[in-house]
Amino acid sequence: MKKSIFKLQCPLPKFDFDIITLAHGSGGLLTNKLLESGVFDLLKNDQLDKHHDGALLNFAGDTVAFSTDSFVISPVFFPGGDIGELAINGTVNDVAMCGGIPQYLSLSFILEEGLPIKEFWDILVSIKYAAEKAGVIIVTGDTKVVDKGKGDKIFVNTTGIGKLHRKANIDIKNIKKGDKIIVSDNIATHGIAILSVREGLEFETTIESDTRSLNHITTALLTKFGEDIHLFRDPTRGGVASTLNEIATDRDLGIVLQDEQIPVDEQVKAACEILGLDPLYSANEGVFMAIVSESIAEEMVAYLRNFKEASHASIIGEFVDDHNGRVLITNPLGGKRVVHMPIGEQLPRIC
Amino acid sequence: MKKSIFKLQCPLPKFDFDIITLAHGSGGLLTNKLLESGVFDLLKNDQLDKHHDGALLNFAGDTVAFSTDSFVISPVFFPGGDIGELAINGTVNDVAMCGGIPQYLSLSFILEEGLPIKEFWDILVSIKYAAEKAGVIIVTGDTKVVDKGKGDKIFVNTTGIGKLHRKANIDIKNIKKGDKIIVSDNIATHGIAILSVREGLEFETTIESDTRSLNHITTALLTKFGEDIHLFRDPTRGGVASTLNEIATDRDLGIVLQDEQIPVDEQVKAACEILGLDPLYSANEGVFMAIVSESIAEEMVAYLRNFKEASHASIIGEFVDDHNGRVLITNPLGGKRVVHMPIGEQLPRIC
Repeated sequence: MKKSIFKLQCPLPKFDFDIITLAHGSGGLLTNKLLESGVFDLLKNDQLDKHHDGALLNFAGDTVAFSTDSFVISPVFFPGGDIGELAINGTVNDVAMCGGIPQYLSLSFILEEGLPIKEFWDILVSIKYAAEKAGVIIVTGDTKVVDKGKGDKIFVNTTGIGKLHRKANIDIKNIKKGDKIIVSDNIATHGIAILSVREGLEFETTIESDTRSLNHITTALLTKFGEDIHLFRDPTRGGVASTLNEIATDRDLGIVLQDEQIPVDEQVKAACEILGLDPLYSANEGVFMAIVSESIAEEMVAYLRNFKEASHASIIGEFVDDHNGRVLITNPLGGKRVVHMPIGEQLPRIC
Repeated sequence: MKKSIFKLQCPLPKFDFDIITLAHGSGGLLTNKLLESGVFDLLKNDQLDKHHDGALLNFAGDTVAFSTDSFVISPVFFPGGDIGELAINGTVNDVAMCGGIPQYLSLSFILEEGLPIKEFWDILVSIKYAAEKAGVIIVTGDTKVVDKGKGDKIFVNTTGIGKLHRKANIDIKNIKKGDKIIVSDNIATHGIAILSVREGLEFETTIESDTRSLNHITTALLTKFGEDIHLFRDPTRGGVASTLNEIATDRDLGIVLQDEQIPVDEQVKAACEILGLDPLYSANEGVFMAIVSESIAEEMVAYLRNFKEASHASIIGEFVDDHNGRVLITNPLGGKRVVHMPIGEQLPRIC
C-alpha cells in the first residue's frame, strides 16, 4: 500500500485545538485527549490499549517489561538531582511499575550546541551513579547535537527493559472494590523542589527532589505479596490526582481518599499553602502507589516503612463501587470534594 | 556510596574542547572523541565496548537485539519522507544490523509548543505506515512538550527490540583478511536529498531520501548465508567513509575500496560534483553494508539484486592485512588515496 493511500485512510481527527501547547505535555486532560483521539487511536494495539507505563513482551520463556521516557526538565540541575539521574530513575521506575526487574537501559542524548562539557560530564557521572545504584546496565546509546536555540542544553531519552518478576500479576483489571491505595512516601516533593528553584523561593532548608530508583522496593514487595498487588503506578507529572483519575476511569470504579492519611512533608505542605498549590497535583519522582487487596494492606504498609525511601508509607484510600470513574476526597470533619483530572499542569517541563 | 564521592572518582577527562559543537553530533572524529574518552570510558561494559548499533541481551533462551536512536532532522518533512518514517526505519535498521528481527518499538516525542497538529498528525501517519511496512509494533511511548524556542518542531526517539536471527553470528571479530565489503544499493542519496532541500537546489527530478526499512532483506540474507555474514552496518551520518574507518580501526585490518564499484545514482553524483562533496561522506538511510566471506560475495550480490531496494548491490572492496586501521581507495587508473575519517560532518542534523 502506498503512503498516499494511507494518508487518505487516516484523516486528522477532530481536535478542539490546532497547535501543540505546553499543556499537551502536562500529563493532564489535554495530554490524554491528544493521546486517546490521536496517537493511541491511530497506532492502536493490545499493548498501547493498556495505558500502562510500559509494555510486556514475550521472548522464549520470559516476559519482559519495556518502557521509554524522554526527559526535558528545566533546569537540568536542581536541588536533589539532575536530568541524568532523573532519566535513569524515571525509566527504572517505569519498568518496576510494570512488575519488571529493570536490567538494561538505552541512553540517548539530544545536546544543544554550546553546552559546556563540564555540565555534560556532571550529568554523565550522575547517570553512572544512578545506574549503579539501581543495578542496571546501560548497553546502547545515541548522541545528537542541535543548533543553539533549537534545544535547551540537554534532553535525555532512556528506554528500559527487564524480566517480569515471577510473582507479578500487575493488571488494572485485577483491581476490585475494597482494594486499598497505598502511597510509598511523602508526596509532592519533586514538583515543589523544581518550582522553588524556578521561582527563587527560599525555605528554612532546601526542598530537594525525591528522584530515586524504586525497583529494589517493588521487587521485595512482589516477592512478599505477589498477586495481592494489583497495580503499581508512579504519580509523576500530574501527580497523584491525575494517576488516580486515570485508573478510576480505566477500571470504571470510584475512589475515596482520606485527606488526613496523605503523607506530605511539613515544609512541602507550607510551600504548597504559600503558592496556592494542591500537593495532589504536584509531581513525584521517588514515590509509587500500590493498589492491593484489602487483606494485606496494613501488613504492606508496616513492611514498607522498613525501607528508608518508604518510611512514610500510608493507606490513603480505597476503591468503591460508587461514583465510578471519579475520585473523591474526605476530610476528618466529614467534608467531601471531587479530585478532578487536571486540564494542564501546575508547571511545564517537570520531568 | 554517596554521589559526591562518585564525582571525585570521575574527574572530567582532558578534552581539547570545552563546549559541545555541532560536529560532536556528526558521527565523525569529534563524535568518536566525545564517546571514547567520555561516555564509553565512564559507563564502560561489555556491550558498549562493542561499538555496534545496538546491544545483544539474553532472556531465557532468546537473544534479543536492542537499539535506540533520537532523530532531530531538519527539515522534518523532506523529499522522500519525514522524521516519523525516518525514526521507524532508522531503529528498525539498527536492530537488523545486529542480526535481529525487529519486532517491537517504543516511540517518544519531544514536541515544540506551537507545532501545528496537522503536521504532528502527518508524522504519526508516516509512523504507522513505516511500522506496518517493516512489520513492527509500537508498544509503548511518551510525549513531552517544550516551550517555543527550546526545541525545533519535533524530535523523535525510537528504541527497538527483536529476537536475534537463529543463524546470525554478527561480530566484528569474525572479519578476516580477504572478506568482501558489499553495499546494498546506491549511496549518498539521503544526504544529498536533505542538502538539496536546505540549499534550495533544483535538479531535473527531485532527489528523494532513500529512507526505508531493510530488515526483510537482512533476514533473508541471514537465512540464506548465515555465518558467512560477519558484519552488517548501515552507513548513516558520516556515510560509508566513517563507518568503514570505524570498522578498520576496531578490527585492526586495512580496507581497499574500488572507486568504480561504488554505486551512486547519476543525478546524485552530479549534485555531489556541483556541491564539491564526496559521496563516501554523505549520509544514507536505506543502504547497508555487509562484510562477508569472499566465497559467497558474488552470490550474495546476485541474490540482493532481486530486491527492489538492493538492485544496485555491489562489492566495493575488501579487507587486507596491510595499512591496518586505514581505508584506501583505488581508481581504474591505478591511483590510490586515503579515505580519512571525517572530523565533523558535511551537514548537521541529517537524521
